[in-house]
Amino acid sequence: MKRPTIHDVAAAAGVSRGTVSRVLNGDKYVSAAARAATERAIAETGYVVNRAARSLVTQKTGSVVMVLSDPHEKLFEDPNYSVLISTAVRRLAERDVSLVMMMAGDDGDRQRVIRYIRGGHADGVFLVSTHAGDPLADALGSDVPVVAQGAVIGKENVIPYAAADERLGARQMTSYLVEQGRRRIAMITGPMDTPGGTQRLEGFADVLGRKASKKLIAHGDWSRASGERAMTQLLERSPDLDAVFVASDLMAAGALAALRAAGRRVPDDVAVGGFDDSSVAVSTHPPLTTIRQPLARVAEETVSLLLALIDGAAGVEPVILPTELVIRESA
Amino acid sequence: MKRPTIHDVAAAAGVSRGTVSRVLNGDKYVSAAARAATERAIAETGYVVNRAARSLVTQKTGSVVMVLSDPHEKLFEDPNYSVLISTAVRRLAERDVSLVMMMAGDDGDRQRVIRYIRGGHADGVFLVSTHAGDPLADALGSDVPVVAQGAVIGKENVIPYAAADERLGARQMTSYLVEQGRRRIAMITGPMDTPGGTQRLEGFADVLGRKASKKLIAHGDWSRASGERAMTQLLERSPDLDAVFVASDLMAAGALAALRAAGRRVPDDVAVGGFDDSSVAVSTHPPLTTIRQPLARVAEETVSLLLALIDGAAGVEPVILPTELVIRESA
Repeated sequence: MKRPTIHDVAAAAGVSRGTVSRVLNGDKYVSAAARAATERAIAETGYVVNRAARSLVTQKTGSVVMVLSDPHEKLFEDPNYSVLISTAVRRLAERDVSLVMMMAGDDGDRQRVIRYIRGGHADGVFLVSTHAGDPLADALGSDVPVVAQGAVIGKENVIPYAAADERLGARQMTSYLVEQGRRRIAMITGPMDTPGGTQRLEGFADVLGRKASKKLIAHGDWSRASGERAMTQLLERSPDLDAVFVASDLMAAGALAALRAAGRRVPDDVAVGGFDDSSVAVSTHPPLTTIRQPLARVAEETVSLLLALIDGAAGVEPVILPTELVIRESA
Repeated sequence: MKRPTIHDVAAAAGVSRGTVSRVLNGDKYVSAAARAATERAIAETGYVVNRAARSLVTQKTGSVVMVLSDPHEKLFEDPNYSVLISTAVRRLAERDVSLVMMMAGDDGDRQRVIRYIRGGHADGVFLVSTHAGDPLADALGSDVPVVAQGAVIGKENVIPYAAADERLGARQMTSYLVEQGRRRIAMITGPMDTPGGTQRLEGFADVLGRKASKKLIAHGDWSRASGERAMTQLLERSPDLDAVFVASDLMAAGALAALRAAGRRVPDDVAVGGFDDSSVAVSTHPPLTTIRQPLARVAEETVSLLLALIDGAAGVEPVILPTELVIRESA
């Protein structure tokens, strides 16, 4: 059977082709009766829009790009990405906007993203885990609306974002460890060119003040292996530590392995606090006491900011969502 | 500055617009000299293709859709999805094809996918974790090439797929548990409308024959919680079991929690074998002895099948990749 055309819809509805076109493009200046007749005719004929043709008319592509800036390997072990992607897909689908995935872990990838955006193939960009100084954030400029999941350091006032309150979360965990009577509290941070790296350390220092000595701080790169390495370093430097706040659950899983290898019991000898409340937190033994990031809500809010900009909002404010302490068995 | 057009490219290259168009569309009938001049002119002018316009000419969209059929919640805890998505994105990017993500966890989602495909917005479809009898597999029909990651039960001869050798993997783990001297080996399967559900059970039965009694088999749905429930059931039914083969690492993490709650030591009292070798396998205590699925390679092969079909291959054969036993501490 021949695929129905816009002519067939117009004939079935008893309206002009121009009216059908205006209904399809969301134009407000169509009478309620003509709109209803057109919509009925679209359903009856089974007409589907030729997106390429519509795109030429509306100058909208109906899609946005999610750019994952972390190297390929990281994506393999971190369950947070699945949450982000599936939440964004669902939220965009409500508006019939599709999500195109792109990677930007190296220069070749970044060039591809830039070509794609400059080519006018997307109505907006959703950046994920973009580090400070990432050349992509500059290159995208003002071609299309750009938002980020989590602030891009140095671009906080340029690229709108939604994020969990990183600093609050770190204060909640550090205060909890203090309340549990822990006296020598160490920290394993994320990379210091990400807001999760810097702000969680700030929250830790907010509570401990001068007790947050350099000897008690080690850095990881969000990977499980880096958490294990950092914990081993901390135990060498400060064998008397009795607690550690680890800036992600995945790194905390690595820290647990290092503590076990060193013969320390958790939480008896060393209390371990995580951050994220991802699926990793309930896979470890003992299950992690951690800080819940409302990651699905953060993804939803990031999408909402992007849709507002695509719809023509002149500017949008960052959205910061509160975190919550989740007590399990590791602290 | 005005965006350069195809006219500007033709003028700079000293060729006709038709020649530029043929180069852009990958037409073979262009002289080497004209092609070189055109490519140089594209670089000089900074011309970027208007994808919507090109799409009208080539009848190709330059994108494929990945359809995730599992319910939203599942995506939140299973790290395997990140591997699939990032591998597919990377492999498609080499061919300048973009990946559009869609969900198909409920009827509304499925309708949206069908509309999108029928609307001609994608050159192909990549199905992920589609269960037997999923109406989507029927509805897509022959509109565009469709491939699946893992066989779609009942559609093995219709929808080409790449997969790990599920049955081999299950035989490898079951044989290993037998060699370790285990006598009462139980199994927690995946859902029986997926190949990972049925074929891993078949491999288990291949090795144990009549010893694979119904009392020693319980079913899960791939979620961690279902693994915990199934293990609790098995311990009630067969308190003398001394090993369990669990059809996914995530369910095995749940099984470990149930064994711990029942006071059984792993592996001393009960050996636990997983399946996947996902990031969960090294987060548990003890770390899981498991079967490595070459998931990234499976994703690559699935993409290759799809690209071959889009390029016009008349038919393609399924690709089955071998699995491997990974020995850690749980068995």
